[in-house]
This record gives sequence, structure tokens and C-alpha cells, in this order.
Amino acid sequence: MRELVLIGVGAGDPEWVTLAAVRAIQEIDVLFVVVKEREYDDLVEARRSIIERHRTRPLTMVELLDPPRPWQSVPDYPAAVAAWRAHRLESWGQAVAGHLGEGQSGGFLVWGDPSLYESTLAIVEQLVASASEEITYRVIPGVSSVLALAAAHRIPLNRQGRAVQISPARMLAGGMPEGVDDVVVMLDGKQAFASIDPAGLDIYWGAYLGTPEQLLVSGPLGDVAEEIIRVRADAAARLGWVFDTYLLRRRDREPARGG
Amino acid sequence: MRELVLIGVGAGDPEWVTLAAVRAIQEIDVLFVVVKEREYDDLVEARRSIIERHRTRPLTMVELLDPPRPWQSVPDYPAAVAAWRAHRLESWGQAVAGHLGEGQSGGFLVWGDPSLYESTLAIVEQLVASASEEITYRVIPGVSSVLALAAAHRIPLNRQGRAVQISPARMLAGGMPEGVDDVVVMLDGKQAFASIDPAGLDIYWGAYLGTPEQLLVSGPLGDVAEEIIRVRADAAARLGWVFDTYLLRRRDREPARGG
Repeated sequence: MRELVLIGVGAGDPEWVTLAAVRAIQEIDVLFVVVKEREYDDLVEARRSIIERHRTRPLTMVELLDPPRPWQSVPDYPAAVAAWRAHRLESWGQAVAGHLGEGQSGGFLVWGDPSLYESTLAIVEQLVASASEEITYRVIPGVSSVLALAAAHRIPLNRQGRAVQISPARMLAGGMPEGVDDVVVMLDGKQAFASIDPAGLDIYWGAYLGTPEQLLVSGPLGDVAEEIIRVRADAAARLGWVFDTYLLRRRDREPARGG
Repeated sequence: MRELVLIGVGAGDPEWVTLAAVRAIQEIDVLFVVVKEREYDDLVEARRSIIERHRTRPLTMVELLDPPRPWQSVPDYPAAVAAWRAHRLESWGQAVAGHLGEGQSGGFLVWGDPSLYESTLAIVEQLVASASEEITYRVIPGVSSVLALAAAHRIPLNRQGRAVQISPARMLAGGMPEGVDDVVVMLDGKQAFASIDPAGLDIYWGAYLGTPEQLLVSGPLGDVAEEIIRVRADAAARLGWVFDTYLLRRRDREPARGG
């Protein structure tokens, strides 16, 4: 048997690694390291430091080089993306076939949790389905940046009896969704919060959560949107990268009642 | 200074405890243990075992007895709930004032993550605001049952470019919400999934996630709803309690395309 393990290692603080993740890091035979285009040195270093802290025996590391993504301006963008995905799958598949021996376990470190806005799981699923050898796989959950955001602000994600939505930024283009009063936005490269009507909304924003660089800003959206954009731009200029997450929360129109 | 720490300890598997939670368990001076009505022995035992595994020095434990909740049939239910909450806050406040000394740190163990469908944080916030001594508090995030569910089924919570909603069961009464194709339901005592139109929906259900008793069922909602109800009832009869969570997922009408 061959096994792949997706190891959620939490969203920033090295202490958010679980005992299950530590055990997996100690037990795997091979670590597959996905090297993305324009990978940030700080993240490569953070990954290296997690391995170094928890792995006592030597570990075989195999780099998976993500092919460069096609430009959005190519003539048939969907076809180009499909070709890029097929290329990536083939390249990962070859690396796993070439380095994961019979009876061995191979790991992937995944920031945060493998189930939220993360593509490794989908690729591994396809890879396992198309492999010529039988490969099993399992997932170790981790502390998502969504939970890290709430912990840093010391707020509940949902309010009593209500829903919370986790959403990609572009779904905010038309404002807050119907029927939801709490929306967490991940992977927003364009600060969508600044282009929606701020009336009645609070924002809880965080970047570099759980790291020494952690930044938090919260308040009425209309009052703090500009501050967040400025703080975010300053940090991005200084560090060369930024990962941020935020919660938009509709203020209650009337005082909360018991119930 | 006095400090309270809400320690998320994960949703079932003792290995989902983070290194930050372990450190907090080792460092606190007092553990406040919330004893709910009809607390399940298995959960008391699981909590005890987490402490025993990670705490080497003796630990002062203070029980916080939740007063019995009012019946829904009392004449003025909202007023009765408000009175019950005030009573609980006063009782917790007295326990903290009486047992948390100057310079000490007091912990609360919280299953899963303290930010999702969990009331401890809201009570601690009020308690700190109304305390006569200055008390700080902080939150350690944990692996929520929502993430544990996805990991056990080895599925992403959201699909690419789409939102996922985490919702209390009663919001499903009218069926799936508008504009959302993936809904995770927590705290459903009434199996709401079985009373909505199953057309086009898949369900991923899990109970006792991360424990030796873990149960998983998935498939088209119309095909497996009855099986889930049966499996859940059998387990509840055998163990005396059940905690379950599920994801309802709208099936794609057409094959996924690149993009």
C-alpha cells in the first residue's frame, strides 16, 4: 500500500499545529513540497521551520513545481487553464509515482485547513484516481485562518441562531448576500470591502494572523476601510506579501433580545 | 493582572489539540469547568483525559454549575431566558472572583473552536466587562467539527469560487438558502435534512467525529436520509448521546468546466 496524507498545519502560528499533524510529520517517509510561482520566502521559511521543529529523523523532500499559470489575456483562457491543470496533475503524478515506494507514506503540508479555499485535496483526489498503483489518502484538519481571525478579535463567527458565510471576494461585488448577516472573506486581492455600501456594516480585518507581524483593525466599515487599505499597503510594501482575511458583520438595528 | 483563556481543544480526536492548547493547559493556574445539565459522561471523561495527558503539575479545578434552563412553555419565555442568563453570569462571575487570584490565569476548555456555535466567549466577555477587578482574556482557536467533518469525508467545504454557509438547523426549514450551494449544519436535534426537498442535493453526514465511535454516511440526500436517521438513532440509543454535523451540497447540473 501507498498513502498520501494532507497535513493541515494551521494558519500562521507554529503553535497552532495539532498533535496529529506533529505525529504525521514524524511518521511520513516523503514530503511533497509544492513550490508555487512567486513563492514568498517567509512562507518557505515557516514551512521549513515546522519540519525542523517536529521531524527528528531525516526526511526525503520532493519538490512539486507548479507550472506557470496561463495569463488571463490568452485567446482561450478556459482551455489554457484546463491544459495547465492537466499538466500540473501529470507532473505531480510522476513525482509521486517516482518517489513514493510500496508501503510508504507521503505528506503534503497545507496552510490552515485542507478543506477551505485550498486546491491540494482536489489534485490529490484526481492523482489517486489516475495512478497505476493503489494509493490511499487521508486528511488531517487544521486551524483555518477563518477561526484564527475570530480568535484574534475574540469574537464569535456567527451570532446566536444565525448563519455565517465564508465567501470568495468576488461574490461580494453586489454587496452583502441576502439573508446572511456575517460573511468571512478569504483571498481578497482587491479589497472588495472598500467598494460596497458600508452602511450598517462592521468589519473585523486581520493579516499575518498568528505571526509576529499580525495586524488587526476593526470598526464600522465606513470609518476604518481607508485605514485598512493603508495598513495593508504599508505591510505589503515592507514584507513583500500579505495574506489577509476579514469578517463583515451587519450591525443589529435594535438591541438584542433574549431568546 | 488576571487572565482568562478560552482554549479550543478540537472536535473529538484528542490528537486535534494544538500545541498552543497544550501550552495553555500546562500554564493556567485554575481550570473553570462548565458543568451543563445532563452532561454526558463520555464528554466529561474526554475532558478529564485531555487534562491528565497534558497537565503534569496539579491543577485547581472549579466547577461552574449552569443553572437549569427554563422550559419553553413558561409564560414569558424570553424574560425567563434573560433571567437565566443573568443568573448564569452572576454565578460564573462569583466563581471567577473567588478563585482567580492576582497574577493568575484561568482556563476554559472549549470543544471544537470557541468561535462557532459556542456560548462561552460571549459569557466571558460580559463577565470581564462587569468584573470589579481588571481581567484580560484571549482565545486559542481549535479544530472545529466543521473542518473535522470535511477531513473525515476528504472533501473541500467550498467548491472553487463559491461560498459555503455554516448554519443552525432551523434556518433550513425553508430548504437550501438562496445563492448558496454548500451548507454545513451544526446542532441539529431534529434532522432537518430529512424534511427538505432532496432533489439535486448530496449530504455528507458525520457523528462522533474523530472518536473511535465515528460514523460517516454520504450520498444523494434522497437515497441516504433514512439510513442516517436509523444509524443516528441506533448510536444515540447505544451511547446515550450524539453530536453530529453535516454538509448539504447542491449537485452541479452540468459537468464542471475549467476556469
